[in-house]
Amino acid sequence: MLVYDIIRKKRDGYELTDEEIAFFIEGYTKGVIPDYQAAALCMAIFFSGMTDRETVKLTQCMAESGDTLDLSRFGTLSADKHSTGGVGDKTTLIVAPIVASLGGKVAKMSGRGLGHTGGTVDKLESIPGYRTSLSPREFLDQVEKTGIAVIGQNGNLTPADKKLYALRDVTATIDSIPLITSSIMSKKLAAGSKNIVLDVKVGSGAFMKTPAEAELLAKNMVTIGKSSGRNIAAVLTNMDVPLGHAVGNALEVCEAIEVLRGGGAGDLREVAFALAEQLVSLVKNVPVEEAGRLVNESVASGKAIEKMREWIAAQGGDVRFVDDTSLFTPAKYVEKVVSDRDGFIDSLNAERFGIAGVVLGAGRKEKDAPVDHAAGIIIHKKTGDRVTAGEAICSLYTNDPGSVEAAANICRAAVTFGSKPAGKAPLIYGVIR
Amino acid sequence: MLVYDIIRKKRDGYELTDEEIAFFIEGYTKGVIPDYQAAALCMAIFFSGMTDRETVKLTQCMAESGDTLDLSRFGTLSADKHSTGGVGDKTTLIVAPIVASLGGKVAKMSGRGLGHTGGTVDKLESIPGYRTSLSPREFLDQVEKTGIAVIGQNGNLTPADKKLYALRDVTATIDSIPLITSSIMSKKLAAGSKNIVLDVKVGSGAFMKTPAEAELLAKNMVTIGKSSGRNIAAVLTNMDVPLGHAVGNALEVCEAIEVLRGGGAGDLREVAFALAEQLVSLVKNVPVEEAGRLVNESVASGKAIEKMREWIAAQGGDVRFVDDTSLFTPAKYVEKVVSDRDGFIDSLNAERFGIAGVVLGAGRKEKDAPVDHAAGIIIHKKTGDRVTAGEAICSLYTNDPGSVEAAANICRAAVTFGSKPAGKAPLIYGVIR
Repeated sequence: MLVYDIIRKKRDGYELTDEEIAFFIEGYTKGVIPDYQAAALCMAIFFSGMTDRETVKLTQCMAESGDTLDLSRFGTLSADKHSTGGVGDKTTLIVAPIVASLGGKVAKMSGRGLGHTGGTVDKLESIPGYRTSLSPREFLDQVEKTGIAVIGQNGNLTPADKKLYALRDVTATIDSIPLITSSIMSKKLAAGSKNIVLDVKVGSGAFMKTPAEAELLAKNMVTIGKSSGRNIAAVLTNMDVPLGHAVGNALEVCEAIEVLRGGGAGDLREVAFALAEQLVSLVKNVPVEEAGRLVNESVASGKAIEKMREWIAAQGGDVRFVDDTSLFTPAKYVEKVVSDRDGFIDSLNAERFGIAGVVLGAGRKEKDAPVDHAAGIIIHKKTGDRVTAGEAICSLYTNDPGSVEAAANICRAAVTFGSKPAGKAPLIYGVIR
Repeated sequence: MLVYDIIRKKRDGYELTDEEIAFFIEGYTKGVIPDYQAAALCMAIFFSGMTDRETVKLTQCMAESGDTLDLSRFGTLSADKHSTGGVGDKTTLIVAPIVASLGGKVAKMSGRGLGHTGGTVDKLESIPGYRTSLSPREFLDQVEKTGIAVIGQNGNLTPADKKLYALRDVTATIDSIPLITSSIMSKKLAAGSKNIVLDVKVGSGAFMKTPAEAELLAKNMVTIGKSSGRNIAAVLTNMDVPLGHAVGNALEVCEAIEVLRGGGAGDLREVAFALAEQLVSLVKNVPVEEAGRLVNESVASGKAIEKMREWIAAQGGDVRFVDDTSLFTPAKYVEKVVSDRDGFIDSLNAERFGIAGVVLGAGRKEKDAPVDHAAGIIIHKKTGDRVTAGEAICSLYTNDPGSVEAAANICRAAVTFGSKPAGKAPLIYGVIR
C-alpha cells in the first residue's frame, strides 16, 4: 500500500477503505509517513470530505494509536463531558458533581487554557492542594470511591491526534468537520467512558460561528460516538457572549460553587443543567425530563455541593475554599470599566473578553507559561441590560497593574450598545442525540 | 507575512498577491518554508486553481529562483522547443536542424528519459563522441557558430521547480494545470529563448489524456509565455500510439535522420514539420504557410541534414554515423513479435510500448541508471494496418535476452485488433498561439 495512492484517491473524491485509513494513521504515528504527505492528505480531506464510515474508522484508529483507559469496572455508569471551548465556561465544575451525586462515575481528563478559552485544569488548580496529576490507579480508585476525578491529560493518549493536530494547526487544515470530529472523539473514545455529553459552542467566541455549522459537527460527533458503542448527546449552546459573570480561574470556581449552592448566573445555570440532565439521562437510561428533575433535586437538596466537597477533598484540595470562597486570595488590583454612555447592552464579544482575561494574566500568552489564578473579569452587565454613563460594565482583576489599561480598552471595544433592549439569541440551540 | 495565511487564503479560493507568491517561492527554495506547508499549499492550488496573473507570477518567480541563460546576443532569433513527453518522440532531432538551417538560433537544454517516455539527451548519446555537457561559453559559442546546440540540463536552473516538482511527485499534486504550466514554463523562461514551440501530447501515452485537457494546458502555457514577452505557439499532437516506427535511443536517431533525408514515417514527419513551421514562423516573423514552405524546402534541398552534420560535428559527435546509420552498433538480440490472428490494428497503446522499451533496456528502471542505446522496438504495423497471423507486428532489440519475453508480452497486450480498418484519430488536434 502506498500513501501516495491514498492521497490521490481522497483528492479525487473516493472513499478510503478501513485498511487505507489504518495504514495512514499507523504509518504517520510511527513517523514512517512524512509530514508533507500527511499535510497533502489533510488538505485533500478538507476539500473532499469523508463519509461517516471513514470518519468512524479514522477516529477509532486515532483512539487506538496510544494508551486507552479501561473503565469497564464502572459498567454503564462511566460519564464524560467535553466542551468545544468557550469563555467563562466553567460547566464541568458544575456538571461533574451533579452527575456523580446521582450515581454517575465521572472519570475526566481535562485540558489547560488555550488561546482565549480557559481550561478546567487551570481552574481547579486555583484551589490550594488540588492535585491535577494522579496515577492511573489513584485516578480510578477515586472515581470508584467518590464518583468523580478530574485530572490533566497524561500518559500517551491518542499520539496520532497530537501529531496530526499540530500539523493541521500550521497547514490551515483545522476547519474540516471530519478532522475536528475525529480529533475530539478519538480522545473521548480513548478516555473510555460509556456515556458522553458534548457541549458544542456556537457564536463569536466559539470555533463554530453559526448554529448550522455547529449542528453539522454535533451530528457528526454523535454518529461517531454511537458507531463506537457509546451513549452520546450533544447540546448546542450560545457562545456569543461569555457564559455567566466570571472569566478567570478562581473567579470561575467561585461562580460554579454559587450555582451548586442554588444561586449564580441564570445563563450559566441553564447551560450547566442542560448538559447535566443529558448526561444523567444517558447514565441512568431515563427520559430527559426525569433526568432534569433529578438534577434540580440534587442541587436543591445540597447533594451536589456535598459531592463537590467530597471530590475536592479526595483529590487533595483544601475543602474550606469550597465552603467559604472568600478565602481565595484576592487579586491586588481591581479596576472598574465604566460606560461612557447611556443605553442598553447589545452584545459583549466573548472572544475579546477572553483575550482581555489573558492580558490580565488569567490565560497563557505562551505555551507552558504560568497563569495568575486570581486574575480575570467579573461582568456586571450583559446583553439586554440597561447602563447609564459612569456605571461599571465589568471589573478587572489582576496582579499586574501594567495590564489594566490594555485589558480595559479591549473590554470597552468588545461591548456594543443599542437604544432599546436587544432581542436575546437563544442560549441553547438544540440537542442532538 | 505568514505562509499559514497564504495556504488558508488559497484554500478559501482567494487570489494570492504577487508578494505572497514571491514570499512562498523564495522561502521554499531557501528551505525556510517546510515541505509540509508547501504540500498543503500545492493541494489547495490543485483544488482552488490559480488565475492567469497568479500563474504568471508563480512561473516568473520559479524562473528567477536560480541561474538564467542570457541569449540576448541572438536578438529575436533564439529558439526553443519543448514536448510534454511521448513515446517514439524524436522530433527535437528533426526540428532543431531545420530551424537552425533557416536562421534560428536553437539553444536547447534537454532532459533524460523519465518513466516510459524517452529523453533527447539519451538519444544523442547514442552517437559516439557527442558531448551532452558543455560549459556555458562553449554552449553559446556553438549556437552562435552553427545555430544549434543541445545539451543536458546543467547549472542551477529553476531550483524552485526542482524542489517543488519532487514534492508534488510524492503528494499527488502533479496534475494541476497552473502547477504544470509554471513548472514547464519556468524552465523555458530561465532557458532564455525569445521563441518557443510547445508540443503538447494528447492520448493514452501522454500526461494529458483528452484534447480538452491538453488545450487547457496549452492555452495556459501560451498565455504565460506571452505575458513574459516570449513568442510562443503550442501544437496539440496525438500520443495514443508511438510516434513513427522507432522506440529506443539509437533506433530513434536513425529514424530522425531518415526524415531529415526526406524519407521516414509519415506521422513523424507530419508532427515534426508542424512543430518546425510554427517555430520558423515565430523566429522569422512570417506567416505559417510561408514557414511551412521554408521547412519543406530546407529538407528537400538537403540544408537540414547538412545542418545536422554541422551540429553533431561541432558538439564532438562522430559525423560518419549521420552519414551512414548502419554504423550504429546493433543490439545482440532481435526478436519479432508476431500476430496470433488476422485482422486490422485498432490501436497500439503508446504507454505500454514505452514500458516495453524500458524493459528491453532503452529507458531507466531507476534514476541515474545507464541505458542501453541499442535497445528498443521497431514497430512494423500501426493503426489501420492489416495483419495476418504469423506476421510481425514489431521487432524487439536488446542486449539482455532475459528481457525479451516480458517485453513481448507487454507489446502483445498493448495491441488491439478489429475486423476492419479503424478510423484514425487526428494526428494534430490544433495549434494555440
